[in-house]
Amino acid sequence: MSDHETRQEGEESLDTDLKKVGFQGGSAGLRALLEGVVAAPEGLDPDAWLALVGDPPLPADLKAKLRALKADMASALPPSFAATPENAAGRLAALRAELARRGLGGFLIPRADEHQGEYVARRADRLAWLTGFTGSAGLAVVLADTAAVFVDGRYVLQVRNQTDGALYQPQHLIEAPPQDWIAAKLPAGARLGFDPWLHTDAQAAALEKAAEKAGGELTACDDNPLDAVWADQPPPPLAPVVPHPLELAGESAADKRKALAEAMSAKGADAVVLSLPDSIAWLLNVRGADVPHVPLALSFAILHGDGRVDWFIDRRKFTPGLAAHLGDQVAVHPPEALGPVLDQMGGEGRAAQADPATAAAWIFERLESAGAEVIKASDPCQLPKAKKNPVELDGARQAHRRDGVALTRFLAWLSRKVGEAGDNIGISEIEAADRLAGFRADSGELRDLSFDTISGSGPNGAIMHYRVDEKSNRRLGRGELYLVDSGGQYADGTTDVTRTLAIGTPTAEMRERNTRVLKGHIAIARARFPRGTAGSQIDSLARLALWQVGLDYDHGTGHGVGSFLGVHEGPQRISKAGSGTALEPGMIVSNEPGYYKEGAYGIRIENLVTVVESGKQPGEEKDMLAFETLTLAPFDRALIDAALLSGEETAWVDAYHARVRETLSPLVDQETAAWLAEVTRPLTA
Amino acid sequence: MSDHETRQEGEESLDTDLKKVGFQGGSAGLRALLEGVVAAPEGLDPDAWLALVGDPPLPADLKAKLRALKADMASALPPSFAATPENAAGRLAALRAELARRGLGGFLIPRADEHQGEYVARRADRLAWLTGFTGSAGLAVVLADTAAVFVDGRYVLQVRNQTDGALYQPQHLIEAPPQDWIAAKLPAGARLGFDPWLHTDAQAAALEKAAEKAGGELTACDDNPLDAVWADQPPPPLAPVVPHPLELAGESAADKRKALAEAMSAKGADAVVLSLPDSIAWLLNVRGADVPHVPLALSFAILHGDGRVDWFIDRRKFTPGLAAHLGDQVAVHPPEALGPVLDQMGGEGRAAQADPATAAAWIFERLESAGAEVIKASDPCQLPKAKKNPVELDGARQAHRRDGVALTRFLAWLSRKVGEAGDNIGISEIEAADRLAGFRADSGELRDLSFDTISGSGPNGAIMHYRVDEKSNRRLGRGELYLVDSGGQYADGTTDVTRTLAIGTPTAEMRERNTRVLKGHIAIARARFPRGTAGSQIDSLARLALWQVGLDYDHGTGHGVGSFLGVHEGPQRISKAGSGTALEPGMIVSNEPGYYKEGAYGIRIENLVTVVESGKQPGEEKDMLAFETLTLAPFDRALIDAALLSGEETAWVDAYHARVRETLSPLVDQETAAWLAEVTRPLTA
Repeated sequence: MSDHETRQEGEESLDTDLKKVGFQGGSAGLRALLEGVVAAPEGLDPDAWLALVGDPPLPADLKAKLRALKADMASALPPSFAATPENAAGRLAALRAELARRGLGGFLIPRADEHQGEYVARRADRLAWLTGFTGSAGLAVVLADTAAVFVDGRYVLQVRNQTDGALYQPQHLIEAPPQDWIAAKLPAGARLGFDPWLHTDAQAAALEKAAEKAGGELTACDDNPLDAVWADQPPPPLAPVVPHPLELAGESAADKRKALAEAMSAKGADAVVLSLPDSIAWLLNVRGADVPHVPLALSFAILHGDGRVDWFIDRRKFTPGLAAHLGDQVAVHPPEALGPVLDQMGGEGRAAQADPATAAAWIFERLESAGAEVIKASDPCQLPKAKKNPVELDGARQAHRRDGVALTRFLAWLSRKVGEAGDNIGISEIEAADRLAGFRADSGELRDLSFDTISGSGPNGAIMHYRVDEKSNRRLGRGELYLVDSGGQYADGTTDVTRTLAIGTPTAEMRERNTRVLKGHIAIARARFPRGTAGSQIDSLARLALWQVGLDYDHGTGHGVGSFLGVHEGPQRISKAGSGTALEPGMIVSNEPGYYKEGAYGIRIENLVTVVESGKQPGEEKDMLAFETLTLAPFDRALIDAALLSGEETAWVDAYHARVRETLSPLVDQETAAWLAEVTRPLTA
Repeated sequence: MSDHETRQEGEESLDTDLKKVGFQGGSAGLRALLEGVVAAPEGLDPDAWLALVGDPPLPADLKAKLRALKADMASALPPSFAATPENAAGRLAALRAELARRGLGGFLIPRADEHQGEYVARRADRLAWLTGFTGSAGLAVVLADTAAVFVDGRYVLQVRNQTDGALYQPQHLIEAPPQDWIAAKLPAGARLGFDPWLHTDAQAAALEKAAEKAGGELTACDDNPLDAVWADQPPPPLAPVVPHPLELAGESAADKRKALAEAMSAKGADAVVLSLPDSIAWLLNVRGADVPHVPLALSFAILHGDGRVDWFIDRRKFTPGLAAHLGDQVAVHPPEALGPVLDQMGGEGRAAQADPATAAAWIFERLESAGAEVIKASDPCQLPKAKKNPVELDGARQAHRRDGVALTRFLAWLSRKVGEAGDNIGISEIEAADRLAGFRADSGELRDLSFDTISGSGPNGAIMHYRVDEKSNRRLGRGELYLVDSGGQYADGTTDVTRTLAIGTPTAEMRERNTRVLKGHIAIARARFPRGTAGSQIDSLARLALWQVGLDYDHGTGHGVGSFLGVHEGPQRISKAGSGTALEPGMIVSNEPGYYKEGAYGIRIENLVTVVESGKQPGEEKDMLAFETLTLAPFDRALIDAALLSGEETAWVDAYHARVRETLSPLVDQETAAWLAEVTRPLTA
């Protein structure tokens, strides 16, 4: 048989196999599916995607064929789409030619997708493809003769390393905002293009002003000119969408939809357009895997006043049983149906709500031109999603016990290794991070890391958003500090924890500063505050001990954390700048003061806490709240100078350590338990 | 001679006398002047106004004549213009008839003048004239068939006492805002009138929306319909305007004008319209006396890009020497010239800046209809005015020493009186306040009280904005607390201080709660914070000790204070809600945590503090700021439970008391000094 005949016969047999397991679309459909599958993150379970082909269990030989096909397709992809020094100039020239063809004087390339999430699918990494810059936030502005990349403070060095200064001027996003640059550089009369799917309504308004200031105009592009020149751009990711069961969610999707619909109707909206995938995941009790580290499915939804939902999502992502889980009040439409449905809402003159801070300018433009009454208000899922219910909180506590076991095993292992080693400890940052991930995976429950582990030794610990790579990788060094910030995604909860460890003997300065950071951590952990207090009001408690000696840290004290969702979620936070959102019972936030000595070491102590009612004692007048610490892992006592702690602070550390020991000891091996007993004994004993 | 002839002869002789001292306008002009003089607050110096007639010293017989004339005119005025139960209905009916004549379906009467200050002249007390409500903030909305008065939480009781419920529905300004009421009650098609001089641009926009929601419209009235029916409405006040000399101001008006003009030009504005009289007083280094307690002259000004100022003010308020003090870069115009000058700026297409949060809607409307480019931005005087220069700070320290002498003499006097008295102490709240004012006046430097003294004994102390009157007046009672919050206006500084005193023996609860309030006060006084920190970030430090036992207080922790200007000034403050303004060196703020037990007692401990650079100690990384306490007066040690204070807190109290003793002892009589030595000895001694 000829090669061609062999292939044809193979495909026919595959078609037959696929039909048997109920897969529609044959081998051509399978190929299209696989293109989406390899455009999604790999994930910890390499076979999860097989559920998109048919009900498990699939026949073993079919599985093998499918795996081989997928491996084949994955191997054809480049390891990274990011521009290299070799191809960056060519890509920029191609984009400029495309812009010229379209009569555009410039174009904006944000590091954002249609959903404004922290992580994007490979298809949406346009900024990296064009410029080489791989940070998690940024914006390129390409004009006919000049171009710039805008990044915030944490990426100032990285952008210089990753992009060609002859092609892109590196700019500071905050100190020299793109609006000013555009106002100064856009030629008068020029049309500055932007993709209205990739900018929020608020962003588009600011950019429009800037273009007008320059005497030009901002022009929405119907399709993205960069996509037109990115030949091997992957399709949208296709990762399995699964039910998030009531046993974990704690409230049925029907109840959530009903409550939200009623609140929305009371405010005069007929429907709300949801564009944040984590809101949709929470509302419908589903989870996906379209982007790294956050179990969400990229999609849009419209919630109606009667509690019905129109969900705009590629149905190929559905796993068996999902449709039944959704029920008949959730109508599923292909993504491209969103526009026509918005048109229809406009035609009926309905009042449609959307969030100008997070929803794409495209949505507002479409609603307005269709004649809808547009109500600009914040995403109504955000606040109820942030306030975890008792089932979610029980899940969080369980996830934290499991995560505490993993982290404690890691700490005990590292302590042993350091103790056994000579001057050369021989453990690299990457190895340590991998080992920690392994301990987490040992639980058998880990779905993903909740973010790329920050594993920073010595001076690398002082880089606040450090991500180790082969180039930066250092070995842990005696007399240095090692900072490890990591977390896991479990079906029952999301974790995020930072410990700072002395490798060998720390200096007095390290101990003193770590103890001040710990004092700030304890001040938050012990805080009691009246209902109605916002995180911004208590942020300074975490800083006081550092302020006393003229030190501080340049990040917030705490961010919200999801329930098997994003490790960063709003609307609550603990930071200098107030979001104004009051801390409410059930909210989970991080408690993570730090101190960073550039070029030397970094310190951060992070536990997750949840807001609880503190009860009204006799004689008390206000309804008081407090924090319950969720994270369970010992602090490094070598870095604590007990003389700097007050009696109450020492008592807090001792009680926390006792709780860690009592909870985790039964769950770890004897060697780890012995180590834990030693490191959690009372500070003053 | 007939009576008529006598009078005529008298006027002729007065005309002659007036001509001799250079007064223009003769006796008719004098009468008009005196009408303005009696429309201004009385003030502490009953003869200050004589400087408006001619250069001192005036001949003794002319002075006598003038005093008699003024007394005559003053005696013809009612003691209060506020509506009484007898005339309120008639006044409302007259207003409604006037509205009907003008085709208006309603009208808004805010407690505000053209300058949005905390205090208004008698002429502007329209809300009191109409409704009887005399609080410092509120709004009446009068429709054809119904009317309401909106007040905030502190005036809920007062509005019910002062207004007739059959005429006006009392409403909560925050919980049931007037916009909602208007949207619900204004008949469709009705025109709701407002005086565009008495509402800010931002307020007018909100009211316009509300009227439109009701299907009606908001209509600016060219002249105020209430003024048309207020037959004996006083004219604008005419109080002397005097130079604020360089020795007190610390920076010449020319330098201030130049610096501001340059900053303004750099931002693209050709001119800024100033409508806050305290801004103008600061900018031109002048002081007036048009309203109670704040030494300002009601007026408007325009600062131009070259540093020139057009000042719109009634020139009759000028005292000898003021014109020379102003110099030739300040052009003086009558108030009614403001409109034509704005028209001219518009005609020339100039870019005019004004503050939408404080400037009258009238100003924006006039600028816009004249064709000016209107730049809405905050008043540029506010921030530099808040940052006192070294001369102003020296003045503040001097004023606080002087004020500390007065308060300490008062405290010693009161302590003696209470000690000497039996069960019946016999001192009323009014008597105590008067006595304290007397001690302040003894300095010979007191220009005015900086606000009406809050003199609250027992349960009256728990009323946060208590103003004693004949009806509420209580005697200080043994076993009760007495709260006294007061301040003075001196040419070199403005003071504001609160002390809480145990009359006889306090209960353990009073001591415990006072000590917690003191702990909050000390936490602010001792705070060190990095440059860039806003007051909202440190507010919680003042509350922590109360939060620990489920208590709090429902007011801010600190307000800005002027330099011989308003006792309340922005933009900085210490409060839960952030203004976002960073605390900067030279700013003066109050430090006044409290605790209020309704129906029982109130506690507040208030000192003024100024922000100072705290210096960078070795090893410190941040530029740190701290507070210097300005106020000098002992705390009541009978109310301090030293066992509740930390060692550092005790040390702070002892050091503060030592400073008070060392500074004031040489300045007070021996008896007071002995008392002061006793009450300021170390807490643990």
